[in-house]
Amino acid sequence: MKKLINNPENVVVEELQGIAAAHPDLVKVHFDPNYIVRADAPVKGKVALVSGGGSGHEPMHGGFVGMGMLDAAAPGAVFTSPTPDQMLEATKAVNGGAGVLHIVKNYTGDVMNFEMAAELARGEGIEVESVVTNDDVAVKDSLYTAGRRGVGITVILEKIAGAAAEAKHSLAEVKAIAEKVNGQGRSMGMALTSCTVPHAGKPTFELGEDEMEIGIGIHGEPGRTRMKIAPAHDIVEMLATAVVDDLPYKSGDEVLAFVNGMGGTPLIELYIVYNELNNFLKGRGIKIARNLIGSYITSLEMAGCSITLLKLDDQLTKLWDAPVKTPGLRWGA
Amino acid sequence: MKKLINNPENVVVEELQGIAAAHPDLVKVHFDPNYIVRADAPVKGKVALVSGGGSGHEPMHGGFVGMGMLDAAAPGAVFTSPTPDQMLEATKAVNGGAGVLHIVKNYTGDVMNFEMAAELARGEGIEVESVVTNDDVAVKDSLYTAGRRGVGITVILEKIAGAAAEAKHSLAEVKAIAEKVNGQGRSMGMALTSCTVPHAGKPTFELGEDEMEIGIGIHGEPGRTRMKIAPAHDIVEMLATAVVDDLPYKSGDEVLAFVNGMGGTPLIELYIVYNELNNFLKGRGIKIARNLIGSYITSLEMAGCSITLLKLDDQLTKLWDAPVKTPGLRWGA
Repeated sequence: MKKLINNPENVVVEELQGIAAAHPDLVKVHFDPNYIVRADAPVKGKVALVSGGGSGHEPMHGGFVGMGMLDAAAPGAVFTSPTPDQMLEATKAVNGGAGVLHIVKNYTGDVMNFEMAAELARGEGIEVESVVTNDDVAVKDSLYTAGRRGVGITVILEKIAGAAAEAKHSLAEVKAIAEKVNGQGRSMGMALTSCTVPHAGKPTFELGEDEMEIGIGIHGEPGRTRMKIAPAHDIVEMLATAVVDDLPYKSGDEVLAFVNGMGGTPLIELYIVYNELNNFLKGRGIKIARNLIGSYITSLEMAGCSITLLKLDDQLTKLWDAPVKTPGLRWGA
Repeated sequence: MKKLINNPENVVVEELQGIAAAHPDLVKVHFDPNYIVRADAPVKGKVALVSGGGSGHEPMHGGFVGMGMLDAAAPGAVFTSPTPDQMLEATKAVNGGAGVLHIVKNYTGDVMNFEMAAELARGEGIEVESVVTNDDVAVKDSLYTAGRRGVGITVILEKIAGAAAEAKHSLAEVKAIAEKVNGQGRSMGMALTSCTVPHAGKPTFELGEDEMEIGIGIHGEPGRTRMKIAPAHDIVEMLATAVVDDLPYKSGDEVLAFVNGMGGTPLIELYIVYNELNNFLKGRGIKIARNLIGSYITSLEMAGCSITLLKLDDQLTKLWDAPVKTPGLRWGA
């Protein structure tokens, strides 16, 4: 295992120490239980957004804490759900009196623990609602999930719902916008290589030198099919066809296209993927009106990519364009 | 070779097509000869900054074209200098009448070709000055270089000189600021894995399963030493000691610390490296006043990192903080 780490057991804590040292203007990091809140939390009268999940997907979620996006993130151990305690303390720390929205990726542990945290927070008089993302069209059920997995749309949802909360929309309104984003978003990913969980010390799965996995999950869960590596054109066609046909997106639609790197894939390849995706969508009469290209929801050092499409309307486009100021995503501020 | 590409021969052109499709609001891409200019080029009365070099280091340089940073970038083939023709056409395309500054990394081919392009541009009546970056403390001469290699400081210099040009400083002033940044900046990098140049089809060098290369160049050129992999703490100590002792940075200094990923290293590891660097510098009495953490000057999919320090003063800090709006670096706009 080749990683820039010290002790595999301390990876998350040392990462959080790094985030705390790097971004004191944007976030505050609380240890034991571990959670990250925006530096000016709680923001009075604003709906607070709390997300979280296993570590190893950076910059998601901790890197998305800040103005215009999340109020707090609870990072679990690598690929392991955070505890209800972490989520509860994060929820209490950012509650500004206008309610809290939990943004939960659809994995059994995350859903269960966020539900428990929401119950506990309600018991302390905090209004809590939840939205669960489940945008991955690859598989219906999987290793850690009943139903579809929550993947790339989570990043987009956190940005758009964050802008809605910043604009002082009510909890019900922010929740409705978040649900619209999840409902109009679809994703699928693929891997060229496995990743290695630090405390496991060996690759999560084995892929031959000439193989790839289509429909991979963000923890290395199996996808739809394992096959010989193929040109970017063919890979994008497989992913994008599955994504586009699922909603379905149709000719005349305007979309936000998110080409995501899995952690070990360089930007030069992501632009080649974007080029293929743009050509594919043109062929379907679908226009990319906004885009995001980079490694934002990762699987440690896995090589590969995922494609997420969100069908846009004026409301969503305006919220996407609004200023955001976080360690991982920033513009207009 | 596992890459998200089509034909290895078309990697750069397809990447540029992707950039053109993704960012028409920020940049325009010209093909044959290949160069990228900011969408509103030429900007009248502003010093224009032109950089370039081999592809494979994305987002550098093409991703840094836009308001507050570069006016143009000339991308060569992967790890190959662009031609004087590309640089000349880029220079002419962005000349706004206030002169053009060429930002050149110290590699023999880049230096020679930029010199030729500058001569040709002068022949057409354009005032051209050059600054050469040579911040890599690892080795004095190397495979492609007489003297030190230009690495991480190039990213920082392009941002700071770009802000100075945006503020309508004169060509002489922008050049002086750029030279100050290079003079006060030092870097060193390391690799956990090799990278594979697409048209070569096999790793540039071989590293054992338990080995790393300290002082690596951004094209996989050999560094100072090959050794057994070590904890992040020890790696940072080796890199940072070489960097700090070279200038020398001294107690009381304020620095910009840039922790860069080589392309295949995930953000979670870069934050662990940043944490170690922050602790190391504290021990030396050096304060990190600004930072940049991410993969900005890469070596295709190489796993590894580099550390760059820039000694700050009020002028440089203010220019660093100024708004920038490029595909690869953006804030305040």
